[in-house]
Amino acid sequence: MAKKEEKIEKKTTFNISKEDNFSEWYTDIIQKAELADIRYNVKGCIVFQPWSVLSMEKMYHYMEKALQRKGHKPYWFPTLIPETNLKLESSHIGGFTPEVFWVTSHGNDEPIEEKLALRPTSETAMYPMFSLWIRSYKDLPFKIYQRANVFRYESKATRPFLRSREFHWIEAHCAHATQEDAMKQVHEDMETTKEVLHDIYCLPFIFFERPAWDKFPGAERTFAADVLNPDGKVVQQPSTHLLKQSFSKAFNVQFKDKDEKDKFAWITCYGPAISRIFASVIIVHGDNKGLVLPWKIASKQVVIVPINNSPNLIKKAEELKKQLEEKEIDVETDLTEKRPGEKFYFWEMKGVPLRIEIGEKEIENKELTIFRRDLGTKDKIKEKDLISYIEKTSKEYQTAMIKKSDSLFNERIVEVSQKEDIKKALEEGKIVKTGFCSVGMDGAKCAEIVEKEVGAQVRGTKLEKEIPSGKTSKCSICKKKAQAVVYIAKQY
Amino acid sequence: MAKKEEKIEKKTTFNISKEDNFSEWYTDIIQKAELADIRYNVKGCIVFQPWSVLSMEKMYHYMEKALQRKGHKPYWFPTLIPETNLKLESSHIGGFTPEVFWVTSHGNDEPIEEKLALRPTSETAMYPMFSLWIRSYKDLPFKIYQRANVFRYESKATRPFLRSREFHWIEAHCAHATQEDAMKQVHEDMETTKEVLHDIYCLPFIFFERPAWDKFPGAERTFAADVLNPDGKVVQQPSTHLLKQSFSKAFNVQFKDKDEKDKFAWITCYGPAISRIFASVIIVHGDNKGLVLPWKIASKQVVIVPINNSPNLIKKAEELKKQLEEKEIDVETDLTEKRPGEKFYFWEMKGVPLRIEIGEKEIENKELTIFRRDLGTKDKIKEKDLISYIEKTSKEYQTAMIKKSDSLFNERIVEVSQKEDIKKALEEGKIVKTGFCSVGMDGAKCAEIVEKEVGAQVRGTKLEKEIPSGKTSKCSICKKKAQAVVYIAKQY
Repeated sequence: MAKKEEKIEKKTTFNISKEDNFSEWYTDIIQKAELADIRYNVKGCIVFQPWSVLSMEKMYHYMEKALQRKGHKPYWFPTLIPETNLKLESSHIGGFTPEVFWVTSHGNDEPIEEKLALRPTSETAMYPMFSLWIRSYKDLPFKIYQRANVFRYESKATRPFLRSREFHWIEAHCAHATQEDAMKQVHEDMETTKEVLHDIYCLPFIFFERPAWDKFPGAERTFAADVLNPDGKVVQQPSTHLLKQSFSKAFNVQFKDKDEKDKFAWITCYGPAISRIFASVIIVHGDNKGLVLPWKIASKQVVIVPINNSPNLIKKAEELKKQLEEKEIDVETDLTEKRPGEKFYFWEMKGVPLRIEIGEKEIENKELTIFRRDLGTKDKIKEKDLISYIEKTSKEYQTAMIKKSDSLFNERIVEVSQKEDIKKALEEGKIVKTGFCSVGMDGAKCAEIVEKEVGAQVRGTKLEKEIPSGKTSKCSICKKKAQAVVYIAKQY
Repeated sequence: MAKKEEKIEKKTTFNISKEDNFSEWYTDIIQKAELADIRYNVKGCIVFQPWSVLSMEKMYHYMEKALQRKGHKPYWFPTLIPETNLKLESSHIGGFTPEVFWVTSHGNDEPIEEKLALRPTSETAMYPMFSLWIRSYKDLPFKIYQRANVFRYESKATRPFLRSREFHWIEAHCAHATQEDAMKQVHEDMETTKEVLHDIYCLPFIFFERPAWDKFPGAERTFAADVLNPDGKVVQQPSTHLLKQSFSKAFNVQFKDKDEKDKFAWITCYGPAISRIFASVIIVHGDNKGLVLPWKIASKQVVIVPINNSPNLIKKAEELKKQLEEKEIDVETDLTEKRPGEKFYFWEMKGVPLRIEIGEKEIENKELTIFRRDLGTKDKIKEKDLISYIEKTSKEYQTAMIKKSDSLFNERIVEVSQKEDIKKALEEGKIVKTGFCSVGMDGAKCAEIVEKEVGAQVRGTKLEKEIPSGKTSKCSICKKKAQAVVYIAKQY
């Protein structure tokens, strides 16, 4: 059990630079903004605190609404998966077994009937049920999702939100009649990612098709969104996979087609890991004053700070709070004993988009001072204009955050043609665009050189096919004619 | 793995009477309304299907909003709890150990560092953290909750929603400076139960203080809401507990009080099990045509059924759907190939509160026919009045369901004074009110007689203190002077 003495001292200043020392900045902000407590006594498991949970609940909301709009139905599958299910598809079990937590007993060490895995992902829980539910082409496409927590016994060092032994995600799984329909689903998943991660969470990313040697265990094709950290490492965010038919064969997911023939379905799966995506929200948007949360997913969207706790200021604060809540805006009122400056500092660190300051003068003039977290600017408005101001500014806020993060991301991509230049560019925190001999298994050898000599990974090719030419016409490693334009980066 | 051959034949009629054969009715409705699939291949674990998940998500929403409004902050704690944590409080581990699932290995049968329990409930995960977070009386009351799935290796027969080895709940835990404050919290929890279970889910119940011999492991006092099944068995729904200080002592949850002295906190916990409460929603409201869902938690609130799929009817259906969705009403449009009668039957079985029927005649007269599930009545309204009709009817619907279920519940309580009459009344599906010698440990002997000879349990005393008198003046078992008025029922 954790002891009182272990209590971490809370620092009162935020003096670590995101640019100079990203890793320490990240650790510090998680503690200061009270996003997660890492002192829980199971390795790799953390306690998610209210400030992150409130935001992640909103992230869930938007992702689930998008999936439902596109015809996915919500399910809750069991957490426990029998070992026999896991063993049915050999490439899958090969990929996941090292990371599985096993339940082997109950009560006073009595053995259970069959060894059970804590789901590392739910293909092997879901597809046996697909086999029961899907009979005819009329049942297809069969589109489902679940909100769930999953478990992976990570051997790599864990970090809160980025990599934990238990994390919180959504997994969407679909069965289709043809490979073509399945590929359409993969593209729909990528579109959903754009609509939610980019347009709502304000995160820039590139979807890459992973090369042959770096696919999801059991996948025919894997597409994954890479988000960029300030230290130049990419974080893999949602991936979507066209699975091999070995899955539908292993789990007997068959249907009677229009031609009366029994056929195996084509299955796709898509996995946005909400708690991991929240890491990117912290990292991409945060600055040296703390968090900057996008309007739509901010734990609280507005904080009202009376400059002192005199009764008429408190009354005004309550009045404004009520007015905003009627518009379904999440508002916090800070009536603590702290000085105004401390309060300002605190809510900036917490990343609240807008702060309303009220003092005696504001009341007298029927005015409000509103501070905007992303730009650090203040507006003075008439109190009666509050709602229209917030409605307008919240839209601008969302747009401005998207624009800013997109532009920072795009600046970080450079085109190079020499191995030495790859190394240099990566050291400067860039993503490298370059020519490559092949993204089929033929290219694995050059990829190994990239891994060993540059310490980076070939992330894959962009969706919009890019034809090797000019700087990208030759493989930057073996100098053979390039078959593909690939992107190289260090992976978190 | 489940095989195709196991597919259960779907019956096309609903011909089991809830009154005559409750148990079979329950099994049947779960399958027909596609609420859960029990064919998953881990004993006691089921797959929750979209129709129940959509409703349970709304149940979560209302419960979480109520808790947040009352100052509870949301957390996500790890699922895994080290054995050492569980062992710290002896009565707790005694009560829960038999039901614990243990994780003992990972990967290729490599042992893990320490045996980990899948949380059966989270006291022992949370309170070590409370110990780190709570320092001073200023930190109190400390009120939190989490939405989580929990695991209990049930030895009793499992039934979907009612009793599973994995279920979905909310647990709220609070730390207080004094026992008095803690008891106020217990009362607040009961008030929350009324606001949500009764006023939103339309469920009638009585909160009983459990007798001394039937408390939560480690509790000083236990209060639990009993809901009634048509077969006369009660189902324990949310319970709230004043824990013994042995918990705060075991987990070192101390604070410095105003008088500068270090004191142990008083802890309370409250556990509404959403997936189990959904069982009561099915059971209490359902009838021989199927589900009847309360307006506020209905998976879909309105279904639009064109009597055929002619283009102008489809167009009208889409138009109405859009209109309703703008008012945030959950609408389904049935454009399947089925005959109108089949569609009507289907959506009644699914429990959708309102059905809008549109045919050529309706379009011509700019009218709509609206069927109301709870009463089985039809209204003809002007199309232009749709929104105002729905707004008015939805409120009436919610009120009518509450009134109906309350009145059925109250009819079922009878006062008796003889042991033989207890038995008779229970056989008629009643809850018995009677005099009892004591609800302290002194009464355990008479309670045992009730258990053995009547096959029922003493549920406890009502909150509003009832003074034994008249029929309840003597203990119906030992005939001594009654110290308490208790309620006796068979427990599911």
